[in-house]
Amino acid sequence: MGPLQIKEILQATPENQPVTLKGWVRTKRESKNAIFIALNDGSTIHNIQAVAQPGQFPDELIQIVTTGACLKITGQLVESQGSGQAVEVKVESIEVYGAADPDVYPLQPKKHSLEFLREIAHLRPRTNTFGAILRIRHALAFAVHQYFNDRGFFYLHTPVITASDAEGAGEMFRVTTLDLNKIPRTEEGAINFKEDFFGREANLTVSGQLEGELGAMALSKIYTFGPTFRAENSNTTRHLAEFWMIEPEMAFFELEDNMDAAEDFVKTVIAYALENCKDDLNFLQNRLAEEDKNKPQNERSIPLLEKLSFVVDNPFERLTYTEAIEILLKSKPHKEKKFQYPVGWGIDLSSEHERYLVEKHFKKPVILTNYPKEIKSFYMKLDEDGKTVRAMDVLFPGIGEIIGGSQREENYEKLLGRVHEVGIDPQNLWWYLETRKFGTAPHSGFGLGFERLVLFVTGMSNIRDVIPFPRYPKSAEF
Amino acid sequence: MGPLQIKEILQATPENQPVTLKGWVRTKRESKNAIFIALNDGSTIHNIQAVAQPGQFPDELIQIVTTGACLKITGQLVESQGSGQAVEVKVESIEVYGAADPDVYPLQPKKHSLEFLREIAHLRPRTNTFGAILRIRHALAFAVHQYFNDRGFFYLHTPVITASDAEGAGEMFRVTTLDLNKIPRTEEGAINFKEDFFGREANLTVSGQLEGELGAMALSKIYTFGPTFRAENSNTTRHLAEFWMIEPEMAFFELEDNMDAAEDFVKTVIAYALENCKDDLNFLQNRLAEEDKNKPQNERSIPLLEKLSFVVDNPFERLTYTEAIEILLKSKPHKEKKFQYPVGWGIDLSSEHERYLVEKHFKKPVILTNYPKEIKSFYMKLDEDGKTVRAMDVLFPGIGEIIGGSQREENYEKLLGRVHEVGIDPQNLWWYLETRKFGTAPHSGFGLGFERLVLFVTGMSNIRDVIPFPRYPKSAEF
Repeated sequence: MGPLQIKEILQATPENQPVTLKGWVRTKRESKNAIFIALNDGSTIHNIQAVAQPGQFPDELIQIVTTGACLKITGQLVESQGSGQAVEVKVESIEVYGAADPDVYPLQPKKHSLEFLREIAHLRPRTNTFGAILRIRHALAFAVHQYFNDRGFFYLHTPVITASDAEGAGEMFRVTTLDLNKIPRTEEGAINFKEDFFGREANLTVSGQLEGELGAMALSKIYTFGPTFRAENSNTTRHLAEFWMIEPEMAFFELEDNMDAAEDFVKTVIAYALENCKDDLNFLQNRLAEEDKNKPQNERSIPLLEKLSFVVDNPFERLTYTEAIEILLKSKPHKEKKFQYPVGWGIDLSSEHERYLVEKHFKKPVILTNYPKEIKSFYMKLDEDGKTVRAMDVLFPGIGEIIGGSQREENYEKLLGRVHEVGIDPQNLWWYLETRKFGTAPHSGFGLGFERLVLFVTGMSNIRDVIPFPRYPKSAEF
Repeated sequence: MGPLQIKEILQATPENQPVTLKGWVRTKRESKNAIFIALNDGSTIHNIQAVAQPGQFPDELIQIVTTGACLKITGQLVESQGSGQAVEVKVESIEVYGAADPDVYPLQPKKHSLEFLREIAHLRPRTNTFGAILRIRHALAFAVHQYFNDRGFFYLHTPVITASDAEGAGEMFRVTTLDLNKIPRTEEGAINFKEDFFGREANLTVSGQLEGELGAMALSKIYTFGPTFRAENSNTTRHLAEFWMIEPEMAFFELEDNMDAAEDFVKTVIAYALENCKDDLNFLQNRLAEEDKNKPQNERSIPLLEKLSFVVDNPFERLTYTEAIEILLKSKPHKEKKFQYPVGWGIDLSSEHERYLVEKHFKKPVILTNYPKEIKSFYMKLDEDGKTVRAMDVLFPGIGEIIGGSQREENYEKLLGRVHEVGIDPQNLWWYLETRKFGTAPHSGFGLGFERLVLFVTGMSNIRDVIPFPRYPKSAEF
C-alpha cells in the first residue's frame, strides 16, 4: 500500500529496474564526478543512496536538495559502485516536494544534544536515534499485543477518566468542565461537583487494574495497554506525568503462576525486539559505545545486544523480601555503612538496595516476593502469617522495578478489612468489592510501565526520550 | 499458560482423560439421574457441561453450586451423552472458590435489559451478550494492530494531555492540579495557569492527528490507537465522552490512496472478525433475530453475518459531495418534502441524507469526497477551485459516518491562511506549521472511531454497550 518503502527497495535485487523513491534528504555530497543524495523515509535506519551526474540537473534544483528536504526521485536500481551498500539508484528525475532552508532548519547533519532534540520533539523523529527508538517502541507494542492474543488474553479498554483511586494514594489530575471563574457552590459553600460533567469529582486513572480485575472475573485472562497518569511534581529521568501501562490480570493464577507469566512475558517481547529490530538495536548499541568512550573502563556498560540476550536467556532469580533483607544486612556496603538509607525488615527498599541485589549480588534480573503488607497496596493477598502479602516486584539492572504485581486478596472480609485499614471509603469501591461477594476466585496480575521497558531495550537513559511527546511538570508542548 | 481454557477443552478429543475445569456456573439443572452444571470461563460463548451423580456430593455443597458461583471441577473428559455438545465432564471433585448467593446475585439465568446491565457494568461481562461483545472487541483491536504492522506502519502514542485543540472547535475536558478552592490569580485578576501542573492550560485530546502528522513526516506511515475525549453534553446512543480512535497518517498518500487505504483497512478488520469470531457473531445474530421477531417484517434487519460479508465483498461507492447533493435534490423524499432538513450545496449533510444515500440509493457503503471547505477542518487540502477540500467520509448503513479523513494541506502559506481564517492562534500550532516549512510532503490520513466499528460488527444499537465502562454525562461509575 502506497509507494514501495526504502526498507523494501534496499532488499531488492538490482536489475536496472525503474524505481521511485520518496523520502527526506539526510545528506548531500558533491564530488567532481557525482552528486550523492542519501534519502531516508523512516521505514529503516538505513538511507538509500541516489546518484546524479554533475550538470544533469539545473543548479537551482540541486541547491535546494539539502538536509531535511523532501524529494521524489525516479531512476534505476543498480548494484552499488561504492562500498557500504548493496544497491543504489541512478537518478533520472528529481521533484522537490518541500525544501528545508539550511539557514533555519534545526536538524543539520551534526551531533545534536538530546536536550536540544527534546525542545524540537516535532522534528526529532527524523533523526537516526529517534527513528530507531520509535521503530523499536512500535515493535515492542506489537509484541505485547501478539503475546497476549496468542495466549488467550482479551484486550480490555479500562477507563481513563475515573472517580476511583486504584492505589489509594496516587497524586491525580482532576478532569473537569466547571468554569474556574464561576465555580458552583452548594448551600453549605462547598464546591458543587453535581454540576460537573460527570456529576461528581473525576480524575485521570493511575491504573486500570481494578477494572481489569472485573474483566478477569468474567473472561479469565485480560490485559490492558493504555495511558495512565501521575500528577507528581518529580523532574527525574525515570518519571512521566503521562505514560503507558500494560496490566494483565488472570483468574486462577496464584503468585507462582504470576511470576512465571511476568518472566515469560518480558522475555518474549524482548526476544521479539532482538529478532525484529536488529538494525536499530545495532545502531543504538554503537551510539552507546560511542558515548562510553569518554568514560573510564569500569563505568562502561555492557553492549546493548549482549545485555538483552542475557535477560532473555537466563532465569530470573526469585527470593522473598525477607531473604533479600538478610542478604543486604550481610552485604559489604551495609557493613561499611556505604548505603545511604538504613536496611532492616520493614523498610521500603530504595534504589541503591535494589541495584545492589540485581547488579552486584545476583548479576541478573530478580523477582522479590512477599513484602510487608504495610508498604504494599490494600488489594494484595495476605500471607498466612498476616504480616506479608503475595506481592512481586521484578527488578532489572539499570532500571530498577520494571514490573510490579501480586496475587489479589479474593476473600471479601479480608479485603474489606484492608480497605478500612488504609482509609478508603468502601462505598467508592462497591463494585470492586462485589467481585469478592459473587463467585470470587484466586487471581493475580501485574503491571509493566511500557516506557521503562522501552528505556531498557533501547539503552537510553532519560524516559523523556522514549515517548514521542513527553508530559512532565511545566511541559505539555506539541 | 495457566489452566487449560474451556475453549480448548471443548475442542479436545474425549478419551476419558483427566481434566480440570475452572470457571463460573451459568446454570445448574438437577434431574433424577444426574446433576448438570454448565460452566463458563469467558474464553468462549460455549459452556462445558459437567455431570455429577445425585448423592455423589453432600447436599450443602450442591446447594451453593448456583448461577455465578466460581468452581474448580476435576473429572474425566468423555463423549457427551446428550445432544448439543460433543464432550462433557464426568465430575470427580468440586471445589467452590466463591459462592454467589441467589438472593442477592443480580445476574440470574433470565433475560436482563441492557439498561439494567449498564448499571452493573462490573458484572455484565459475565453474560453471554457482553462476553461476546468483549471478545469481538478484542479481536477487532488485534486485527487493527496486525493490519498496520503487516503494512509497515508504526504505532505512535500521541499525547492524551494536550495544550492544543486539533479540531479548532471541540468541547474539551480541562486537566488541572489547581486547588479549586484556592485558584491562583495574576496581578490582573485572571487565573494564573503558570501555577498549574503544566504551567499552562491543558486539556484531554480530541484527536491525535496533528501529532500523528509529525510522525508521518518522519516515519512515512504511522497510526494511533488511543483514547480521545469530547465534553459534549449529548445523551445519545452514538456518543461517548471517552472513546478510542484509530488514526493512520501516511506521507506520500493523496486522496485516492487514502480512500483505498480506508476501504481496505475496514474490510480487512471486519473479515478478521468474521474469520475469528464465528461463534460470538452467530450468537449475536440470533440475539438480533430474536429481537426482530417483535418488529414488522419491513423493519427487520438483515442477518448480521450477511451484513458483514456484504461490506467485505463489495466495493464502496465513491462520489463527490457535489454529486451527492445532486442525487439528494432529485430524490423522492426531497421532492415530497419528507426530509426534515433542507438540501442544497453547502449544507452539512444530516443523518437522514446520509442514510438515504447509503441505505436507499446505493444500498452499500459510500465514500463522499470534496466537501465545501466551510464545513470541514482547517488542515484539509484545498481543491484547485478554492471552494472544496480533499475530505472523505466513509458512510456505513445504520451507523452513518464511520471514517472521516482527508488529504492534508501541505502548503505552508495556504495552511497558515486557513489557520487565520478559522481564528486559531498560529503560535499554538507553531510545531504543526513547521512541518510545512521543513521538508513538506503530500500526505493523508483518516480517523475511525473504534466503538462505531464495534457497534457495526456486533449489531448492537447503543454505543454504551460496546465499551466496558462507558463515560457519558453524569456517569463515571466503575
